[in-house]
Amino acid sequence: MAETGAKRWNFGANEAVELSCSQNVRYFLNLLADNLDGGGGGLAVAEYLSLDLSYEICPNDVHLTAGCHHAIDVLISTLAVPGANILLPRPTYPMYDSRASFSKLEIRRYDLLPENGWEVDLDALEALADDKTVALLLINPCNPCGNVFSRQHLQKIAETASKLGVLVIADEVYRNITFGEKPFVSMAEFAEIVPVMMLGSISKRWAVPGWRFGWMVTLDPHCFMKDSGLVHSLANVLNMSTDPTTFIQGAIPDILGKTKEDFFSSKLEVLRECAETCYEEIKKIPCITCPYKPEGSMFTMVKLDFLLLEDIKDDLEFCCKLAREESLIILPGRAVGLKNWLRITFAVELELLRDGLSRLNNFAQRHSKKQP
Amino acid sequence: MAETGAKRWNFGANEAVELSCSQNVRYFLNLLADNLDGGGGGLAVAEYLSLDLSYEICPNDVHLTAGCHHAIDVLISTLAVPGANILLPRPTYPMYDSRASFSKLEIRRYDLLPENGWEVDLDALEALADDKTVALLLINPCNPCGNVFSRQHLQKIAETASKLGVLVIADEVYRNITFGEKPFVSMAEFAEIVPVMMLGSISKRWAVPGWRFGWMVTLDPHCFMKDSGLVHSLANVLNMSTDPTTFIQGAIPDILGKTKEDFFSSKLEVLRECAETCYEEIKKIPCITCPYKPEGSMFTMVKLDFLLLEDIKDDLEFCCKLAREESLIILPGRAVGLKNWLRITFAVELELLRDGLSRLNNFAQRHSKKQP
Repeated sequence: MAETGAKRWNFGANEAVELSCSQNVRYFLNLLADNLDGGGGGLAVAEYLSLDLSYEICPNDVHLTAGCHHAIDVLISTLAVPGANILLPRPTYPMYDSRASFSKLEIRRYDLLPENGWEVDLDALEALADDKTVALLLINPCNPCGNVFSRQHLQKIAETASKLGVLVIADEVYRNITFGEKPFVSMAEFAEIVPVMMLGSISKRWAVPGWRFGWMVTLDPHCFMKDSGLVHSLANVLNMSTDPTTFIQGAIPDILGKTKEDFFSSKLEVLRECAETCYEEIKKIPCITCPYKPEGSMFTMVKLDFLLLEDIKDDLEFCCKLAREESLIILPGRAVGLKNWLRITFAVELELLRDGLSRLNNFAQRHSKKQP
Repeated sequence: MAETGAKRWNFGANEAVELSCSQNVRYFLNLLADNLDGGGGGLAVAEYLSLDLSYEICPNDVHLTAGCHHAIDVLISTLAVPGANILLPRPTYPMYDSRASFSKLEIRRYDLLPENGWEVDLDALEALADDKTVALLLINPCNPCGNVFSRQHLQKIAETASKLGVLVIADEVYRNITFGEKPFVSMAEFAEIVPVMMLGSISKRWAVPGWRFGWMVTLDPHCFMKDSGLVHSLANVLNMSTDPTTFIQGAIPDILGKTKEDFFSSKLEVLRECAETCYEEIKKIPCITCPYKPEGSMFTMVKLDFLLLEDIKDDLEFCCKLAREESLIILPGRAVGLKNWLRITFAVELELLRDGLSRLNNFAQRHSKKQP
């Protein structure tokens, strides 16, 4: 365990990741060179991420990955020491759950509260953690809820995590995809309070998910992650893994540095209109409620009211019948950990979105209980 | 365990890989579609690999990966059920060792015999396996030894693996990189005898390692891997993972189908000359022996004779001093599992190779025991 005064950081039990033969290779190369890390891609990512921050990110703290999935894969594998557990949100992005289950990392779920604009249930969170809790995941802007966490709430989360001695995994893959009142604030702003592992990629903002370029940034001003061996373990697991395509790495300084502002602003304008339309159209549908107007990411969660539906027993049946009858595919809430809700993606052309919502309305009307 | 008559296949204990939430997503999508797999990249790879074979590979058996490292990562993670072990060669390609150690998959090492042209020590191999042995790895053409396995020897390996009830992982990433007497024969030819998991990529033959495009092919005519659940587990682990870059996938039919033959033949001609030069120049160096002239891959293993060296105690010290004194980097054998050998890469420009070998000779002369 890494300690600082009275503080114990649980993620310190990571000395295990040492890698037989390739460890020898790296040891040999380290004998020859002082520093083999770094490179243009990492520098460009550090500069880009520092733009919105009150301090500069060091390029050595940036680890490049083949997209954000790859970052999740490497990070969760590294954190999954025997007996450890992780705090994941409900609802969630399911890749974390899958990866944790596969690595035998126990999952404990804290709730995002729809009645509080999907804020974290902080008291419940605190009760969930113990000395085997290695990390807390926060996705901001939130997939699947579509909310954006305020600076004040982020600070409370950071303080709670610090008190619990767990690092914060800040999945900010939808950073800058905000179109409501609240600005995006990075968890990186609270790295003085709690060690932060920030994940991101170019896939959402630049709309190139297939290019498979992402990052994992260790924000660790007090060296808790470094001293505990976690950063070293992470580098070892990354060394065993794949890399982002080299010529995409080469293009990253231009992609991050030279994309014109109106590319982003026009994209956000479309998303704003789609989110608004989605929210307003859902209001017209009898058995579906959207508790919070989306202000970020590309999704919103809506709740099904089965008291008003007559021949559908759950979200899965709802979605299957909807697909068959209206050729409209919506993800059942159980896929993101919230049964009898739906996750709606509004990041489609406005005309298509209107068509989809109209089909959803038709379907809901058809399956609603008839008024006596 | 999967059984066929009296035969038991050990890799059958793989029912464990089921994936919480994303499993739900997939289940939902499978309700909607009969078959979501397939695609142009897989078809092109199947056609390309079938060119050298006596039968046609089915596109559904091809799983695309972000390079061969990614395939190793996914495959070893999937095979690593508790208590299992794997048979790896010595010397080896160290990524398998690292991945197996990380996944707590026990490693048992069989020897490649330099005195027999680096053929597998089949008797020792048989003695190593037990009912927890899930697979046997064979790298052909061989990294790091530079040999190519004959059809007869491959058949014996397949028969041994079949007798032991273990699948063969055929790492054929250097397929077609052969320039000696022996033609490359794929382990796929023996899939009737033993289930084969064939790995490969475009990185070597097309010289584009940074493009991160590879494959993993299940050759399983008797459905042993399918019936045991291994193929299903593999698909689940792949689903949690990254993908090859989409626009490279799009280019694959042209890359595999339309590259002109003289691109390959001129590259092989250069390698042939380099391998020849390397072998002949090593002969002139007093304390180094190359037991077998390389005929494939890009490497050869050479042995250090410490009776002839006066102030160097092992391969690591040899390589470190060599780097400092001659600015020449050679990988110490321990990095590939064979202490006091060296792995020499001859896939460099002929002039550079000659210069390197001359530096190696100078170094060896300088550190040789003086004749009395």
